[in-house]
Amino acid sequence: MEERVEVGPWAAEAFVDYERLLKVFGAKPLTDLEVGKLERLAGESNAMLRRRVFYSHRDLDVYLNMYEAGRRCALYTGRGPSGYTHLGHILPWVFTKWLQDRLGLELFFQMTDDEKFLHEERLDLPESNRFAYENSLDLVALGFDPRKTHIIIDSEDIGYLYSIAVRVAKKITYSTQRATFGFTDSTNVGLVFYPVLQIAVCFLPTELYGEETYVLIPAGIDQDPYWRIARDVAQSLNYPKPSQIHNKLLPGLGPGGKMSSSKPETAVYTTDPPDVAAQKIMKAFTGGQPTVELHRKLGGNPDRCSVFKMYEMLFEEDDVKLSERYWNCRTGSLLCGECKAELASRVWKFLRDFQEKREREKDRLDRYLIRSKFGEPKMRR
Amino acid sequence: MEERVEVGPWAAEAFVDYERLLKVFGAKPLTDLEVGKLERLAGESNAMLRRRVFYSHRDLDVYLNMYEAGRRCALYTGRGPSGYTHLGHILPWVFTKWLQDRLGLELFFQMTDDEKFLHEERLDLPESNRFAYENSLDLVALGFDPRKTHIIIDSEDIGYLYSIAVRVAKKITYSTQRATFGFTDSTNVGLVFYPVLQIAVCFLPTELYGEETYVLIPAGIDQDPYWRIARDVAQSLNYPKPSQIHNKLLPGLGPGGKMSSSKPETAVYTTDPPDVAAQKIMKAFTGGQPTVELHRKLGGNPDRCSVFKMYEMLFEEDDVKLSERYWNCRTGSLLCGECKAELASRVWKFLRDFQEKREREKDRLDRYLIRSKFGEPKMRR
Repeated sequence: MEERVEVGPWAAEAFVDYERLLKVFGAKPLTDLEVGKLERLAGESNAMLRRRVFYSHRDLDVYLNMYEAGRRCALYTGRGPSGYTHLGHILPWVFTKWLQDRLGLELFFQMTDDEKFLHEERLDLPESNRFAYENSLDLVALGFDPRKTHIIIDSEDIGYLYSIAVRVAKKITYSTQRATFGFTDSTNVGLVFYPVLQIAVCFLPTELYGEETYVLIPAGIDQDPYWRIARDVAQSLNYPKPSQIHNKLLPGLGPGGKMSSSKPETAVYTTDPPDVAAQKIMKAFTGGQPTVELHRKLGGNPDRCSVFKMYEMLFEEDDVKLSERYWNCRTGSLLCGECKAELASRVWKFLRDFQEKREREKDRLDRYLIRSKFGEPKMRR
Repeated sequence: MEERVEVGPWAAEAFVDYERLLKVFGAKPLTDLEVGKLERLAGESNAMLRRRVFYSHRDLDVYLNMYEAGRRCALYTGRGPSGYTHLGHILPWVFTKWLQDRLGLELFFQMTDDEKFLHEERLDLPESNRFAYENSLDLVALGFDPRKTHIIIDSEDIGYLYSIAVRVAKKITYSTQRATFGFTDSTNVGLVFYPVLQIAVCFLPTELYGEETYVLIPAGIDQDPYWRIARDVAQSLNYPKPSQIHNKLLPGLGPGGKMSSSKPETAVYTTDPPDVAAQKIMKAFTGGQPTVELHRKLGGNPDRCSVFKMYEMLFEEDDVKLSERYWNCRTGSLLCGECKAELASRVWKFLRDFQEKREREKDRLDRYLIRSKFGEPKMRR
């Protein structure tokens, strides 16, 4: 019998059993070997790698070898713009920016306004398109290099993708798509087609540069089904297989599950007023005990604590300080109120700076759009 | 039990029972009422209408009323460019040109190079794309007005269609598409999506002109499944339902079936050297008797004769002469050799003139391409 895992592009939980995911999806755990090589090429260590926030991969070793050998390489990630961006979304982007900066790589970033429109009953296309631009500002605020960052907004930039997409589509039967994404008879035909557009971007750099380009995709494990198909068809279409590096999902501030727009009170949005964000954090569900007395006596559980995960995954660079926080919680000497207040303060400052930059660059988004920089690809075959 | 009819976009025969088709597809037979009104608006009579080569319709009456009331109207037809054009393809185009000339209408013409690539194992995309341009020359040679004729080549002009297509796609489930087009689990996902692109063109004029535009589609009955879906979704997307007028399919020169590229020896291509075309006609299967003696005695059967159909549908404008030919065959006074020689001579002259024009305009195709005239549609909603 096939093993079912409730992680896929349209259903993902946090605090999942990542080991089991690896087994089912057939990706490889990230080892010191790949991390060491990547950090050597990057010229510095990275907390998300050391802590295995990025924890598994496919062919990262191949990608790094190609990079080292001077072959053309690029990065690819994206976002389904159905609402405002929260910290769970930007987690892989922070790492992607590090890769761009340290390795000098160009990034193709797909805004799937078509997918979100097709998937969500309540959304119309102008709305998901508006969010594509809205969310793009978060890339700008994170400081991606406009000369090296190329945003594709599906509904408008389809001309870059379609010729590649139909060649992918010819290789994929409906039954493969159904088995991979759980489609049913009542799935609309736009969603049935959509995956080939997400796959097409894996091959776009090769067409745009007119030379074989190796692509690394930093993204949540929930996106893995797309890349499995992409890798299956790549060689028959004469493209390098895309490599992946998978991150764990940032938990929400509630008692379980990933940070998600379906529970806005447990998600910190990049557009939240800093005070509102701080309040959300002060109300977060933690791994602490019900009373201060019990907490002092028994200690807390940082491994199941959304606040500690925020430190670990995004807001504490320093390993020693993170470890201190961990053990101070475990031994009961650090109380949840104090720990939350400190995080709230860091998030408050982060958002203030982030939003300043976001506002400042609002009218300079053009520099990031693929259509302002590339002509349509000259298909090589 | 559902009644199965072997006519659909990917399986069409000629000499079919057109009455039965009407019943199954639910289109209306064309009556003197619509023909009279159309000819009155056009200011002249038309042999294809009189002879019911165009024989059925949906909402042609509505379309003509809108036209008469001064509402914006347009024409839409197309071609799947998997090879060279034959006379069976251009039959509806000849009528479409008459509509354009007499009613002053703009025509949107879709070249579905994506569909043909997705459908035919042997074809690659550059090849079907090349045929899209190759076949476009046949429109030029027929004399369509370049200011009023807008060719859409799917793989290159997808930007005009995609935003409309996803809005159509959201309304159509996989099971509807499967039931309409006979898809199976092994159908590739490109073909599953493709119909919404053919449907999208029905609504493109409304977006391009920024006002409600009534669209009439002259095309073979085999394309009807697309328009049934288009009509089902039109109103919920706030577009006028497209009207259709259906033509019968030109028979091939062999003993049965429509003129088809799968039997090239029974098809007259616009690119055939005139001598070759004449030879094909001289070898045509006719409704004549096995020997001259029997023919003189029993007479022929023009109703089952591919040569007579060529006269009736394309090469004899004059009703009196056509009727003479019919009865001279029936009574045995006209022999097949003579009848074929006369047709061969007409086709020879037609092709010589056509090919001259085709050659002359080869470098002026740009004037017909939608992308050389329109920006992308500003979606109204």
